[in-house]
Amino acid sequence: MPADLSPVLLIERHRGTLDKALETIRTREYWSPYPEHPKAYADAEGGRAAFEALRGHRFALDQPGTDAWTGGERSPYGIELDVRYPHPDPDVLLPAMRAAVPVWRDAGPEARAMVCLEILARINARTPEFAHAVMHTSGQALTMAFQAGGPHAQDRGLEAVAYAYVEQVRIPETAQWIKPQGKRDPLGLRKTFTAVPRGVGLVIGCNTFPTWNGYPGLFASLATGNAVLVKPHPRAVLPLALTVSVAREVLTEAGFPPDLVCLAAEQPGEGLAKTLALRPEIRVIDYTGSTGFGDWLEANARQAQVYTEKAGVNTVLVDSTDDYRGMLANLAFSLSLYSGQMCTTPQNLLIPRDGIGTDAGPKSYDEVVADLAAAVDGLLGDDARANALLGALVNPEVRARLEAAAGMGEIALASRPVTHPDFPHAVVRTPAMVKLDAAKPDAEATFMAECFGPVSFAVAVDSTQDGLDLLRRTIREQGAMTVGGYTTSPEVERQLEEVCREECAQLSLNLTGGVYVNQTAAFSDFHGSGGNPAANAALCDGAFVASRFRMVEVRRPA
Amino acid sequence: MPADLSPVLLIERHRGTLDKALETIRTREYWSPYPEHPKAYADAEGGRAAFEALRGHRFALDQPGTDAWTGGERSPYGIELDVRYPHPDPDVLLPAMRAAVPVWRDAGPEARAMVCLEILARINARTPEFAHAVMHTSGQALTMAFQAGGPHAQDRGLEAVAYAYVEQVRIPETAQWIKPQGKRDPLGLRKTFTAVPRGVGLVIGCNTFPTWNGYPGLFASLATGNAVLVKPHPRAVLPLALTVSVAREVLTEAGFPPDLVCLAAEQPGEGLAKTLALRPEIRVIDYTGSTGFGDWLEANARQAQVYTEKAGVNTVLVDSTDDYRGMLANLAFSLSLYSGQMCTTPQNLLIPRDGIGTDAGPKSYDEVVADLAAAVDGLLGDDARANALLGALVNPEVRARLEAAAGMGEIALASRPVTHPDFPHAVVRTPAMVKLDAAKPDAEATFMAECFGPVSFAVAVDSTQDGLDLLRRTIREQGAMTVGGYTTSPEVERQLEEVCREECAQLSLNLTGGVYVNQTAAFSDFHGSGGNPAANAALCDGAFVASRFRMVEVRRPA
Repeated sequence: MPADLSPVLLIERHRGTLDKALETIRTREYWSPYPEHPKAYADAEGGRAAFEALRGHRFALDQPGTDAWTGGERSPYGIELDVRYPHPDPDVLLPAMRAAVPVWRDAGPEARAMVCLEILARINARTPEFAHAVMHTSGQALTMAFQAGGPHAQDRGLEAVAYAYVEQVRIPETAQWIKPQGKRDPLGLRKTFTAVPRGVGLVIGCNTFPTWNGYPGLFASLATGNAVLVKPHPRAVLPLALTVSVAREVLTEAGFPPDLVCLAAEQPGEGLAKTLALRPEIRVIDYTGSTGFGDWLEANARQAQVYTEKAGVNTVLVDSTDDYRGMLANLAFSLSLYSGQMCTTPQNLLIPRDGIGTDAGPKSYDEVVADLAAAVDGLLGDDARANALLGALVNPEVRARLEAAAGMGEIALASRPVTHPDFPHAVVRTPAMVKLDAAKPDAEATFMAECFGPVSFAVAVDSTQDGLDLLRRTIREQGAMTVGGYTTSPEVERQLEEVCREECAQLSLNLTGGVYVNQTAAFSDFHGSGGNPAANAALCDGAFVASRFRMVEVRRPA
Repeated sequence: MPADLSPVLLIERHRGTLDKALETIRTREYWSPYPEHPKAYADAEGGRAAFEALRGHRFALDQPGTDAWTGGERSPYGIELDVRYPHPDPDVLLPAMRAAVPVWRDAGPEARAMVCLEILARINARTPEFAHAVMHTSGQALTMAFQAGGPHAQDRGLEAVAYAYVEQVRIPETAQWIKPQGKRDPLGLRKTFTAVPRGVGLVIGCNTFPTWNGYPGLFASLATGNAVLVKPHPRAVLPLALTVSVAREVLTEAGFPPDLVCLAAEQPGEGLAKTLALRPEIRVIDYTGSTGFGDWLEANARQAQVYTEKAGVNTVLVDSTDDYRGMLANLAFSLSLYSGQMCTTPQNLLIPRDGIGTDAGPKSYDEVVADLAAAVDGLLGDDARANALLGALVNPEVRARLEAAAGMGEIALASRPVTHPDFPHAVVRTPAMVKLDAAKPDAEATFMAECFGPVSFAVAVDSTQDGLDLLRRTIREQGAMTVGGYTTSPEVERQLEEVCREECAQLSLNLTGGVYVNQTAAFSDFHGSGGNPAANAALCDGAFVASRFRMVEVRRPA
């Protein structure tokens, strides 16, 4: 049966996009092929209907080795999804996936990239549907779910494909090697080089950004010739089930075995990730989640290349600013967006106890904290705007941490509940801010641990120098996905850069406009560095793709 | 004090060489800037004198934290080297090395590459001296020590520098990121990207190829901005001490801290590698040696990126040939070179028990084995030639394994001692070959374990298909640095390729001339694949360099 999606057709459709992605990861300028505005999508409202049509049904994937149906996602907005997913018998599913690999390997890097881009294009076309699936699993507000769960996630997938492609084609498919031997005949060899995958990649999804954090690993492994098994977070299965479904559809149409991409939904309390991670077929693992399980994977899944994004403590050092209002507005937005439930949200705001210099005159520590609290209150004063920014708390653990904030220190900004007009059972809360003093003996135990969710600490430090030291120690000991800094002093700026280069963390300086420390753009910004305890990999660089395949050489006399 | 080696001078000298290396790792054609013929070196004889001048003295390196002097290398050719090396106090040496890193990081990828190329050029100029140092530590014959320990090792170092350079300059130093916002002003950021090293790299050297196996890791780590601590095998310190000495000299002249490259010689029985490998300053480890210690490093040195080359079992499958004499000559040479003490030497020759087809008519298993034994005997019949090919047994463990071969099965080729005209105490032995039957219950325990040294097994298999299965299982379970195959059948050739792609091993087909399965050429051939148990890295590919540094981004409003 000829494939519906011929290689020629796919190249016509997608080669230009790949080339532009390859160019952009070199220039690191702004670019995205996937529009982020809902108006760009023909049927934005149809997305809700498509999402609703999935509820209450089995999500069929026609995978081998399905031995049960499982599911039980409850939206942070208070509705039951009631979707059931195939549960795999790894002894059947994994060998079937492994058996699908050789034909995918033999297709070569370009054909694989083209299939990956077709998958991304079809996911993109269904962005409105994905938006609802992401919203009702992560708790993100709809617009954010649309953008971060849609085009921004697709960007990160495409970025991974571009890196994977270029890494594989660095080596030519064939070479003639002729070595002169003086007066004797030269030695000659014909050589062929084939990128061979490691086997099956396992993607362990997270609750908060199932697509954004899942796509880089999924597409990096797939584009390098591996099969990919997607094990979603049990509270956020639907967006990745949709992804797997699209991938299987495209693979089939392109003439490849659909079992190159499969879903592994787990039974409640099963701990399926742990079982799968130790299987010999699994040779690559991509994980986003707690430090505990990430460390376990790194220590135990020794047969696999393990990429982890774990917990961290993000810091903003406030030394001085020439745009006090802009700084407050920017920080207020960063602390509020998705209720602080981003791995990139600032947690510790280090502020000299003697205050800071600003364009609005000197401001004491207390003034800065009060003004920032007021900025957050102002930003979230209107319930509609608050709902659009905050989304819902993703799970009861986050809510528990927020409720515990009152006992952590003096409350500078109290959290309040917000009513959602459409979802009365949604758990929506404004963020809390707690004042702590770095010089007090007990404070450090509080602010030096990740407190994931809408809780930040305004930490009084003796001086900017003291803050720089604390920043260095925080990155080194706890890791950081992001660091922010505000200063008008070239020397402090230089010191901030030096700390971040020494401790390997990504730094945003003096953001006062519409770019926020917790947002990174694919093709240009790195997400994490891979060089501090928060993550052992960065999205996306050569190291993220280079170990997902190996080059096998065959040489013969010429 | 201005540096003697200015950046401009170094670029004038070496940029062309780097560019040619960058081109060749893409074309994978033949090239080397370092001539392999002794005649190309002005003072080939002076090398011996330089080597002799080192004997009986302290090898001063002026490193911080030297707390003792240690040494005790005895040449496999029977002479004492009597050189003593500085022994480090890690608590002093490692912080000094770490402190040297920032200025090296700030120099940038091109300046680092140029310094590395100057180091390699000076090492190259002293190749005759290195040849004697390698000969009298590894036991390699002088010509081989000259080539493999000299230009071929330098090639592998340059290859690593080229990969490291290109990996770092994939990302621009700066970028302007301008995101349109419809009718509003665009968002704009200025971004800088800096390659930051992981810290200090540790190179754990081996006994047999101190420079060849040591240079890739040393230069890959150094070129990516790390400091490098070289811990040689206690029996092969001198070649790496010379290397460290040259590196420190060049670094100093170029205005960088010499402590970026240091030596860690150990006291007898100290186990210094284990101590160093767990130090927090050590963030990259390159290791060549036993599987036991390699596995220990991978499991325990969790703070570091660990690259290992360990034990493996190399197989040649003999199905058929159209050049029987060429095949025998080629195999005889491969089994004899450096007494089989190469990680790439074939160990198991799988031969169908019903024999093989050849251009000289069908040959039974016994005939093939006898003819191969005769080919080895013929090759090594002349003592001068035998000495030039075999070198000396590197250590007593190899000799013990050779002596145990008699008890492993029927001897097809008996080892004999060879007298060395210059070194009466040299332990020179011709290789042994043992006949085994894969169908016999006890045979597998013998041939499925690495028997490093001049012992090979002629394993009778039921058929070529049986041999392919055994080949597959051997690579999967034991790992392999090399695989060889002889066949005139396109189908068997295809199957051999498929097995090697599935199990990730480098394949040489039908070698009958002057290229041998155990030799690889830098810039063109991969050494190992990184995808089977023999090694977790290949020399050299993107994966070998990409994780030795990270990219740190600083972004500011434009």
